[in-house]
Amino acid sequence: MFDLKEYLQKKRSIINNALQSIVYRKVSDTRLKSSVSYSLFGQGKRLRPILCIASYNAVSSDDHRAVLPIACALECVHTYSLIHDDLPALDDDALRRGNPTCHVQFDEATAILTGDALLTLAFEIVSDESMGASSAQDLRNYLQVIKILSEAAGCRGMIEGQARDLAFEGVKLNEQELQQMHDLKTGAMIRACVQSGAILGNAQNAEFENLTLYAAKIGLAFQVTDDILNVTGDPERLGKNTGTDAIRGKNTYPGLLGLENAMTYAQSLIGQALRALKNFDDRAKPLRAIAGYIIERSR
Amino acid sequence: MFDLKEYLQKKRSIINNALQSIVYRKVSDTRLKSSVSYSLFGQGKRLRPILCIASYNAVSSDDHRAVLPIACALECVHTYSLIHDDLPALDDDALRRGNPTCHVQFDEATAILTGDALLTLAFEIVSDESMGASSAQDLRNYLQVIKILSEAAGCRGMIEGQARDLAFEGVKLNEQELQQMHDLKTGAMIRACVQSGAILGNAQNAEFENLTLYAAKIGLAFQVTDDILNVTGDPERLGKNTGTDAIRGKNTYPGLLGLENAMTYAQSLIGQALRALKNFDDRAKPLRAIAGYIIERSR
Repeated sequence: MFDLKEYLQKKRSIINNALQSIVYRKVSDTRLKSSVSYSLFGQGKRLRPILCIASYNAVSSDDHRAVLPIACALECVHTYSLIHDDLPALDDDALRRGNPTCHVQFDEATAILTGDALLTLAFEIVSDESMGASSAQDLRNYLQVIKILSEAAGCRGMIEGQARDLAFEGVKLNEQELQQMHDLKTGAMIRACVQSGAILGNAQNAEFENLTLYAAKIGLAFQVTDDILNVTGDPERLGKNTGTDAIRGKNTYPGLLGLENAMTYAQSLIGQALRALKNFDDRAKPLRAIAGYIIERSR
Repeated sequence: MFDLKEYLQKKRSIINNALQSIVYRKVSDTRLKSSVSYSLFGQGKRLRPILCIASYNAVSSDDHRAVLPIACALECVHTYSLIHDDLPALDDDALRRGNPTCHVQFDEATAILTGDALLTLAFEIVSDESMGASSAQDLRNYLQVIKILSEAAGCRGMIEGQARDLAFEGVKLNEQELQQMHDLKTGAMIRACVQSGAILGNAQNAEFENLTLYAAKIGLAFQVTDDILNVTGDPERLGKNTGTDAIRGKNTYPGLLGLENAMTYAQSLIGQALRALKNFDDRAKPLRAIAGYIIERSR
């Protein structure tokens, strides 16, 4: 019986240690070090870096050593995106992971620079790590990871999703438009996490395709669940305010499908994610368990 | 006789065309495409990408084809840094390159996302370009460029310089502290431009060291000149407001050394930059001419 809770705790602790050592080595300015640490070491679930490691483990029998820095880079990009999204000019959120957001705790200028620093740091981490590689295949793997990461975070990925999200406040979307927006805003980065792990683990083409499909399904399920939690969740347990989507006139799955149907939809997406892994052996156990965990958050 | 004006015009036009094609291919969202274009295609001098190409040409006999995308990536990082620096929470500048700054022309949210997009795009461009490489040496060159670029732009480079600049407003610095701040804030990226060109041109160690020294000297001369222009320059010709450093209590070279001494200092730095190139042949002509151009702006 696979113990997901223990797996997540172990990986979180490994990731936190690695991130701490990166920040210690890479950030010298005292205020930046403190704002970067504050933002990275909140109550993050570390879902994205864990997905990267779990994906690597699904195709490789090595432990996590080779993939850990890449997983940390992905968490840096995720954290940067939260800091900038929370800014007054964007979502203007005061609470994140149970704590004041970066611009509230520090100031706006520091929050902008902290986000910039974390985004840049991600690419520094990956390129640093690549310096130890010698074979053309390994070097190409790192470049592929950088390509995947920059595309997913970039203006045909997360940033386009964010731009659409802002543009669409108060505009009624149909299901296809909503799905496209989420696919860009959160889906692209979740896919990049799973794909990066697969690439470093030298996944074969069919494995890579199936892992990509898995990622697309759980990415969407994650967003549907997030929308549900914004209606039904407990702000204290979630560490962020709820009911905010309705106030801002955001397009959400419960708003579009109704709460009941949104829950059924999330459930069916998880089923599809699991089917994408049907040809994988027991090394995909963590990925399978994480799929379930993604919607269980909402119960 | 080397015609710098013609050289700069030719390179600018090549860079602008390449950037235009990148934006066309890479940015789909209409508003983002328009804000990215607005920011990239102002009246930029393209000094950084030209330095990258000129450095490549100083060690390689190829034309600019291999280095052009990398030069564009460097301009993207530079433009992102201007957009974020101009934000109300940071320098709060309304005018840049003769036009309203991005957040004035669009809005703050768009300016933040546009900067984020350009920073991310830089890494997308380099990794895209690397996909055509096959030898381990070429692959390693691209990874080295990503490492240099992310370090120069990052929290032990430009972002640290920006953080210090904010922290030091109204605090009196000595010459060493001022130089350190500028070395981080503008020097690191100028060095990265010259180094990236050198790496793609497969520069030998001694060549790389000398080009790095050249870059450090012109980078500092550039900043000294910038400070001088903020006192003596014509806002219309510069395309930005002057006298702003004094109003904000910024530390500057004219403030520290006096205007006359600051000009002499800039001149001596250019002499040092030229001496760093003494073992280079005629292929370094553009680099030599650019050194002079950097302080001639101030006359």
